[in-house]
Amino acid sequence: MSGRDEIGVGLIGLGTIGTGVAKVLQRNAAEIEARLGCPLRLVRIADLDTERDRGVSLDGIRFDSDAEGLIDDPGVDLVVELIGGYDVAQRLITRALSAGKSVVTANKALLALHGKALFDAAEKGGADIAFEASVGGGIPILRSLREGLNANRIESVRGIINGTTNYILTEMERGGEDFEVVLKRAQELGYAEADPSFDVDGIDAAHKITLLAAMAFGAELTFEEVPTEGIGQIEPIDIDAAAEFGFRIKLLAITKLHREGGEPRLEVRVHPTMVPASSLLAKVDGSMNAVAVAGDAVGPTLFYGAGAGELPTASAVVADLIELARERRRAQVGRVAPLSYLPHTMRPLPLLPLGELEGRAYLRFQVLDRPGVLAQIGALLGDQGISIESLIQKGRAEPGGSVPVLVLTHPASEAAIRRALDGIDQLPDVAAPTRFVRIEEDL
Amino acid sequence: MSGRDEIGVGLIGLGTIGTGVAKVLQRNAAEIEARLGCPLRLVRIADLDTERDRGVSLDGIRFDSDAEGLIDDPGVDLVVELIGGYDVAQRLITRALSAGKSVVTANKALLALHGKALFDAAEKGGADIAFEASVGGGIPILRSLREGLNANRIESVRGIINGTTNYILTEMERGGEDFEVVLKRAQELGYAEADPSFDVDGIDAAHKITLLAAMAFGAELTFEEVPTEGIGQIEPIDIDAAAEFGFRIKLLAITKLHREGGEPRLEVRVHPTMVPASSLLAKVDGSMNAVAVAGDAVGPTLFYGAGAGELPTASAVVADLIELARERRRAQVGRVAPLSYLPHTMRPLPLLPLGELEGRAYLRFQVLDRPGVLAQIGALLGDQGISIESLIQKGRAEPGGSVPVLVLTHPASEAAIRRALDGIDQLPDVAAPTRFVRIEEDL
Repeated sequence: MSGRDEIGVGLIGLGTIGTGVAKVLQRNAAEIEARLGCPLRLVRIADLDTERDRGVSLDGIRFDSDAEGLIDDPGVDLVVELIGGYDVAQRLITRALSAGKSVVTANKALLALHGKALFDAAEKGGADIAFEASVGGGIPILRSLREGLNANRIESVRGIINGTTNYILTEMERGGEDFEVVLKRAQELGYAEADPSFDVDGIDAAHKITLLAAMAFGAELTFEEVPTEGIGQIEPIDIDAAAEFGFRIKLLAITKLHREGGEPRLEVRVHPTMVPASSLLAKVDGSMNAVAVAGDAVGPTLFYGAGAGELPTASAVVADLIELARERRRAQVGRVAPLSYLPHTMRPLPLLPLGELEGRAYLRFQVLDRPGVLAQIGALLGDQGISIESLIQKGRAEPGGSVPVLVLTHPASEAAIRRALDGIDQLPDVAAPTRFVRIEEDL
Repeated sequence: MSGRDEIGVGLIGLGTIGTGVAKVLQRNAAEIEARLGCPLRLVRIADLDTERDRGVSLDGIRFDSDAEGLIDDPGVDLVVELIGGYDVAQRLITRALSAGKSVVTANKALLALHGKALFDAAEKGGADIAFEASVGGGIPILRSLREGLNANRIESVRGIINGTTNYILTEMERGGEDFEVVLKRAQELGYAEADPSFDVDGIDAAHKITLLAAMAFGAELTFEEVPTEGIGQIEPIDIDAAAEFGFRIKLLAITKLHREGGEPRLEVRVHPTMVPASSLLAKVDGSMNAVAVAGDAVGPTLFYGAGAGELPTASAVVADLIELARERRRAQVGRVAPLSYLPHTMRPLPLLPLGELEGRAYLRFQVLDRPGVLAQIGALLGDQGISIESLIQKGRAEPGGSVPVLVLTHPASEAAIRRALDGIDQLPDVAAPTRFVRIEEDL
């Protein structure tokens, strides 16, 4: 603290979230000081673009493009990294940690891929790294897993943790519009990136569930192994069918630990999922996020809030700054392990293959409207022990055309479903690859 | 730690929650150690009844009725108070804190009435007092307000924070049964106490919202001033009417800070409330709890989970123990102020009178079935500037009997409603006092 009774914050990256951090630190300065006991002051900002007006006062704050100078500035006690990306961000974070300056970041991609190196650098440098804003925006979900629920054996973490895809699915449902139409509008409104693949293909959610799985189960980070499927294949007919069967479709990120019998195995996956229409997760609309956590003692819980955006994300960044400022004032570090479990207790966990998942399934067959085709499909499902709970066929095809047949199965293993679909999609009367959406219950 | 690399826990009160704490500490010992870095061991228990079998192993744990001996035991680093009540609990907690031993308690009644004395004792004794289990059972709501959302100016906290009343209202809705019938069944099932007044009259929820208001706004504890109304007056007809108007009835505890114009004023109240059927709070059924918090940066959030019960409450108690154990290992204390705001920044806040509340209202008139009575009621409402949005009258009375008339008003001040009802309830054709249920929107 260099003899000052205030904590100086240096901010690298004055984009949307960085601007939010500046706003929150300024307008809530009195509230923050009443909780922390001293001012938490933004003293320096680094960004390549020093010209653009962000609509926030930068009076008294040094602002240039020198990120390394910021880190080395003795007036900067805590460093916020909000530039995103990999190499430069990692180099800057590591530089700060090595200088004993604790870091706040929202960079889930970097954490999911290179978290271990960063946590090692923090330990070596005698500094902390905090990253509440990296998952669930303003929802204090990491803090809740790490501290609020840490008396539990966590059983599952299941969440809507990508606002862009939830916005698109909600709009598709409202207007009955196609994915591509809604995506284009979301891009025009700034809810989706020009290159939307990170969001719509589920990669962003996979980064986040990687962090959640590590914190919930002490599993070493496994981003490369997370089976991931985006929402691009979902069509309005699937959303309608979900409603008829009593579900809604959400891009869910799921992780569970299977402790039964022998070595524990980690289930982790991201894909469009039908959730019961009566569940709380089904009510999470637009760009909102929610994470359901089940623990052996606490039972089911749910944490809901804005998953992205300038001020909600800044809320999480500044909460981390307050926590690190407390530690800095007490000359303490390492109070809680960054991933909840102490590093030496974390271990690689074998993954549960998707084929072993059991559950009801939604199947959309596209069939030529000829006698006998449903019997053939039913037989191939039956061969794999899969029985049909409900079936919807609407309308008749034009001569020579095809019609969709929508099926809800009784519980079956995913391996059995895959085997049945392999056969079904070879049938001459099946006109297109069958769509398969997993169903998640007990929510 | 007396040279041992473990933290010793002493537990006063081996009732339902105490038993849960013993179970969680035992069965999740490995998980807890992997997060904390050393064992957290239950070493001693005090309870007046040392005979009853609680279904938990007490091997190796000293168990007697000597609470003071437990506090003074050098093997006890942290003390858990779970006996409830006022005088004895306060004396024991104060004794522990004065000896520099941090305390975990779930005693919301004691905290709401005598919190300040306890926090002073903690500061003087160089110890911490933690009480996550006192509000929302296993939901880490206090931790989230104190740390997760502490970058925000909190705008409102609104919650279903009493499981017994939510269970009763849910059952009344499911079965169309009267309050007294469901209450009796809840008592038989152990969901309600033999003397249910603490729960059904809203006192328990008032204790909890007192703590939440203090943590959200830095308001000095104001339990005596919380306007509180229980659910005993709610009848099945009101629940049905709520559904027809698009609402559900919940016992809501509400606090908001009105910062507009001059000195901030505190709104705090507990009463049956109609919430929009589409809101997340409306989906919180049975004995579950949920708390909606809105902050100026984070926007709307919601925290959901079991609000009571052996293991969920133990989840919160043990999370507090882990936090205090971390501090004990580092010989630290006072990391975060117990009510989030540093004591010297807390202040008494003037209360917003209920009369100044504005909102739509539900009114149930009981009228003699004579021509002109609705016109009289409408005129008296109109005199106060209250207009009717929707009106339901079902069936006709027996000759000489009365019928209910159910009204949803447009927004009006509560003072105007009270004035109108004063007049209406004097009308010769009004057969019983009018029922008034407040409506809470923007949820």
